Amino acid sequence: MQFADRLKNVETSAIRELFKLLGKPGIISFAGGFPDPTLFDAEGIAMSTAAVLRDTPGPVLQYGATEGYGPLREQLSLFMANKGAQVQPEGLIVTTGSQQALDLIGKTMISPGDKVIVEAPTFLATIQCFRLYGANVIGAPIDADGVLVEPLERLIEEHKPKLVYLIPNFGNPHGAMLSLERRRRILEIAARTGTLVVEDDPYGELYFGQPAPPSLLALSAEVPGSREWLAHCGSMSKILSPGLRVGWLIAQPALLANATMCKQFSDAHTSNLTQATAAHYLTLNRLDGALGQVRKVYAERARVMAERLRAELGDAITFDAPKGGMFFWARLTGGRDAGAFAQRAIEKLVAFVPGAPFFAHDPDLSTLRLSFATADVAKIEEGIARLGQALPQ
Amino acid sequence: MQFADRLKNVETSAIRELFKLLGKPGIISFAGGFPDPTLFDAEGIAMSTAAVLRDTPGPVLQYGATEGYGPLREQLSLFMANKGAQVQPEGLIVTTGSQQALDLIGKTMISPGDKVIVEAPTFLATIQCFRLYGANVIGAPIDADGVLVEPLERLIEEHKPKLVYLIPNFGNPHGAMLSLERRRRILEIAARTGTLVVEDDPYGELYFGQPAPPSLLALSAEVPGSREWLAHCGSMSKILSPGLRVGWLIAQPALLANATMCKQFSDAHTSNLTQATAAHYLTLNRLDGALGQVRKVYAERARVMAERLRAELGDAITFDAPKGGMFFWARLTGGRDAGAFAQRAIEKLVAFVPGAPFFAHDPDLSTLRLSFATADVAKIEEGIARLGQALPQ
Repeated sequence: MQFADRLKNVETSAIRELFKLLGKPGIISFAGGFPDPTLFDAEGIAMSTAAVLRDTPGPVLQYGATEGYGPLREQLSLFMANKGAQVQPEGLIVTTGSQQALDLIGKTMISPGDKVIVEAPTFLATIQCFRLYGANVIGAPIDADGVLVEPLERLIEEHKPKLVYLIPNFGNPHGAMLSLERRRRILEIAARTGTLVVEDDPYGELYFGQPAPPSLLALSAEVPGSREWLAHCGSMSKILSPGLRVGWLIAQPALLANATMCKQFSDAHTSNLTQATAAHYLTLNRLDGALGQVRKVYAERARVMAERLRAELGDAITFDAPKGGMFFWARLTGGRDAGAFAQRAIEKLVAFVPGAPFFAHDPDLSTLRLSFATADVAKIEEGIARLGQALPQ
Repeated sequence: MQFADRLKNVETSAIRELFKLLGKPGIISFAGGFPDPTLFDAEGIAMSTAAVLRDTPGPVLQYGATEGYGPLREQLSLFMANKGAQVQPEGLIVTTGSQQALDLIGKTMISPGDKVIVEAPTFLATIQCFRLYGANVIGAPIDADGVLVEPLERLIEEHKPKLVYLIPNFGNPHGAMLSLERRRRILEIAARTGTLVVEDDPYGELYFGQPAPPSLLALSAEVPGSREWLAHCGSMSKILSPGLRVGWLIAQPALLANATMCKQFSDAHTSNLTQATAAHYLTLNRLDGALGQVRKVYAERARVMAERLRAELGDAITFDAPKGGMFFWARLTGGRDAGAFAQRAIEKLVAFVPGAPFFAHDPDLSTLRLSFATADVAKIEEGIARLGQALPQ
């Protein structure tokens, strides 16, 4: 059987091979990208699901609008307003998780051979998603304050990309937080060069101290001409539940209309049951409490991980402790190879993900990603101690 | 903003323009494609949702496997076995409605310029879905017993298509039921020519008298070499609820693995909440009762529609009364134009969909589609009487 040519643009993930080893008994895993399920507000979600099936079974169980379930679009408009971004309900569409928002951007925007700029490193599923539409993906360098503006500007001028994809808040895998000053400059570049910037923000609510700076979307109101060059992807996955598969896409009208048309032929619409559940939940006044708990737990785990990494690995590793999110991004010193280290770590019953697959090209083989979201403090202490034992002498 | 080239392959639907008129007060609509929401087993679904959120909140609310939720894959394996098709749980993946199964087939199989053969007429969203992947869509003629085998065979030999897409049972819009003899011959052609046949079967359970013949999937066990050239799309939408967005795809291992990879970057996975709900519902022994009621109600509506069409429109219209499903496919005689008739019908406050958009090319402008699923018997009687009044004298 001859498959579509676009499949030749993606490889099976190196991470997948590693994940096969994670079933070993007794392993402590920092390798996953999942939130801690014990922090889900299952009780609140069950209340909402019961309420919408009792009160509005017809629309909840019937086909719905491709754009999204009306009450959820209204709630998401309020949610974004609370984060400083004015978006009418008609200015967003609901997607089947924010992964689908990325897919619809790819389907709507990318022709084979088009160039796309991403952070180096960036979310692996974004690289693969865009490559399936034929994108030539180019990485732009970052530091702990996010993407470096001058190199980004040079890459835009050189490559005239179809779009630039950024995760400004505590991204997977880099954990960096784009500074306010860089946010403004990126919006100015987008407006001046007519370059679409896609802001993916699944982690913005998971800050540990001060909230992150306003989103590019919120700031676009202050930078003339930038709003029409900005798309924004949001997600319920890290703030409520990934199992619901509810995300959203905000963009200018023509892009949103084309993305809606693409969605019609992708999955018709997102489940009304999960959309109605999310909409109802947002009226319950439980989200702030649930998020407060998540922030507190993750902040403590991140604090302990930073402390133990410094104690156990010392100058064998460098990192900037993240200000939010779920991930440490670290680099082994002395040219050590993170892939070989991962193998030795597995032997010591602790797992993490080498950083190489998160680069679109020219991977830094000394980098690695550690998630602190699902292991408790005791597991983190034990796991990092094992990591220290896995270091070559 | 410059969008992807693939968008040039689809036009905004002619149907969409017509649907804008459907808001007129007092209109009786046979235009929709929705099932009757009063027949949904909302009570059973609410029981299942409550049970899975109570008993397994962790896996239901967490990220899940791209292939699908384990308990649902097991239930769907049993469901298919009851319909005579032996499929292991690992032999199917769960999709976000069967629309996504079509999308994944397109993404996995179709390169720009590839040819695809469909029934003329066929499901509009399939034509558009495949065109977004660059397909050149070719129609094969049908009658009340489904696609005509000799013309199909000639088209396959002439065009060497990437795949052939068929809705063997009571398809949208044609309502035809592919005969058992034609099913066998099509499987033989698939095996002999090495042509992928995609069987889309959302309506097979909605038969009015005898069940439909075994699916191509079930019959493939009897036709050597045919199973590997067969993909099968199933859906909960017409038998349980479209709002859940639960469908499935069955195919040979290499195709299924590639479709799973494409799904990973399309929406990561289908909602675990709706998957777990569907899985639990299938253990309740309520489906047969609910389906029995749906068949009875739809059969009566179809009977009345056939009778009133003959009485009110006489020899101005020809059709074969469907043996299941939700649609009449009819043809105006004397070269009458169904688009103009639809406009006059709207003035008389009754709506249907002209058939032209359902043809990939060379539309038959005298054809039309009437749904009997959502209007009750009294509405059908009144609506068809209005249709009679809309006939030009």
